[in-house]
Amino acid sequence: MGLPEHVRIVEVGPRDGLQNEPGSVSSAVKLELIHRLANAGLPAVEATAFVSPKWVPQMADHDTVLRGIQRRNGVRYPVLTPNLKGFENAVAAGADEVAVFGAASESFSRRNINCSIDESLERFAPVMEAAQAHGVRVRGYVSCVLGCPYEGAIEPKVVAHVSDTLYRMGCYEISLGDTIGVGTPLQAQRMVAAVAERVPMEHLAAHFHDTYGQALANLFAVLQLGIATVDSAVAGLGGCPYAKGASGNVATEDVVYMLNGMDIDTGVDMDALAATGRWICEQLGKQPASRVARALAARATEG
Amino acid sequence: MGLPEHVRIVEVGPRDGLQNEPGSVSSAVKLELIHRLANAGLPAVEATAFVSPKWVPQMADHDTVLRGIQRRNGVRYPVLTPNLKGFENAVAAGADEVAVFGAASESFSRRNINCSIDESLERFAPVMEAAQAHGVRVRGYVSCVLGCPYEGAIEPKVVAHVSDTLYRMGCYEISLGDTIGVGTPLQAQRMVAAVAERVPMEHLAAHFHDTYGQALANLFAVLQLGIATVDSAVAGLGGCPYAKGASGNVATEDVVYMLNGMDIDTGVDMDALAATGRWICEQLGKQPASRVARALAARATEG
Repeated sequence: MGLPEHVRIVEVGPRDGLQNEPGSVSSAVKLELIHRLANAGLPAVEATAFVSPKWVPQMADHDTVLRGIQRRNGVRYPVLTPNLKGFENAVAAGADEVAVFGAASESFSRRNINCSIDESLERFAPVMEAAQAHGVRVRGYVSCVLGCPYEGAIEPKVVAHVSDTLYRMGCYEISLGDTIGVGTPLQAQRMVAAVAERVPMEHLAAHFHDTYGQALANLFAVLQLGIATVDSAVAGLGGCPYAKGASGNVATEDVVYMLNGMDIDTGVDMDALAATGRWICEQLGKQPASRVARALAARATEG
Repeated sequence: MGLPEHVRIVEVGPRDGLQNEPGSVSSAVKLELIHRLANAGLPAVEATAFVSPKWVPQMADHDTVLRGIQRRNGVRYPVLTPNLKGFENAVAAGADEVAVFGAASESFSRRNINCSIDESLERFAPVMEAAQAHGVRVRGYVSCVLGCPYEGAIEPKVVAHVSDTLYRMGCYEISLGDTIGVGTPLQAQRMVAAVAERVPMEHLAAHFHDTYGQALANLFAVLQLGIATVDSAVAGLGGCPYAKGASGNVATEDVVYMLNGMDIDTGVDMDALAATGRWICEQLGKQPASRVARALAARATEG
């Protein structure tokens, strides 16, 4: 397969990003972030998570955030819903797309949610049924696809099994997460190739973290296999919860820069995106974890 | 072509790196850096530059540095020599390998050394002759191969012309430099493919900067074409002189991490390399510009 002509970017900064930032921002700032990202041309902006504030205090304002979105035509605003209660609250607040998640590592699953991978997936059955009844699209995340903080390397066939299960349960897209950012290009290709034997390539997304600086190389590797949906976070928001101080999500600016350079269309306006990244980092009192953002800022200062 | 089984890394931190750092270190620290890098398994460590201290004050101690190296068997210590005087001083100080350079951009050449590309290459003729007479190997750098700070995009055929000229003048290897780090993977592949029509692939090296975070993706792209020599700087030493505050050389740690993950042998000991990166950054009072270095440090802190 050749490279895709168009890549759909799923912006995860307002949820996966902000959830893992040490700083916090108001609901108004979250809403401005979501609006700016949609206006910059991102076709999907993950907005918040309907999880207990006990576990994720940063997303306690999920109701305010989801209800406050001024929806832009054609843009999707998925929210994370780990259980039926979260799903029902999300739908009550206007969600038309939700996301569920499973791990590709038994140790990760057991240590984080105290059950096996398969048990964790079964728990989503009521959410999937309710989603179907409400006509709500469900995205499935698979974590630890290229490595686990507890057990190291992960077999591609396990990733394929979890992905296939979520797909058959009704997820329209499976987002393959290198949660700790340890993967390298050939591993990424082998993993995607294994999953694509079970789930059609057009229903797969790459969700790579840049902890070891490998995310763009890994993305280039899997774009070559036909992956055409990429998750990223503006300014690289969100650190790595398993190595504090290290990078998390690949920066949307860096992904768009690479794709622009390959004449792969994303529909994203780089200037508006970069300005949004600078703005949210000012709100958080941090530097963008995006090389493109830093280079553009340095160039602007020089000029 | 498939990926190479072995990649030769040319470590440029002590020269290209330190030359572009705002901080400076003593000759003793430079020598310890060179020794540590050689001991970590790097097969080539660019040691210093025999240029006028008027132009490059950071390399004013070139004589002390080159003479002070305790040479490790099988390791090469090239030095930059822009003219015959520099070459003669370098040989007098024990150089057995030198490097010369040309730009692939007319604007860059005219604005930096006030002559055309071809005139700049002609000026190396006496160096090449003297090198041949002394049995000294000459490496050729080509800068701006994927973009120029003054004229933007660069035609691959111009890069091919400059590379071919240096190769025919006697350079054993041509190092293709994305000086401002603006390239993306397909541009890198097109450029290397064009050069390889004139200079055999095994005599080409990739010298990519990480200013826009693209270096590893670009390296993965050209490794697929058969490039098997890569220039990098420990801890990503050296900023970008055309965008102060932005990243320069791709970090050796990040390159070795990617290659290790693809089972491509480099002979480099990652632990010794990463320790060297942390140490030189302490000497310079800065954070490493290497995601791998930061992730390893964060993991160590986590315990």
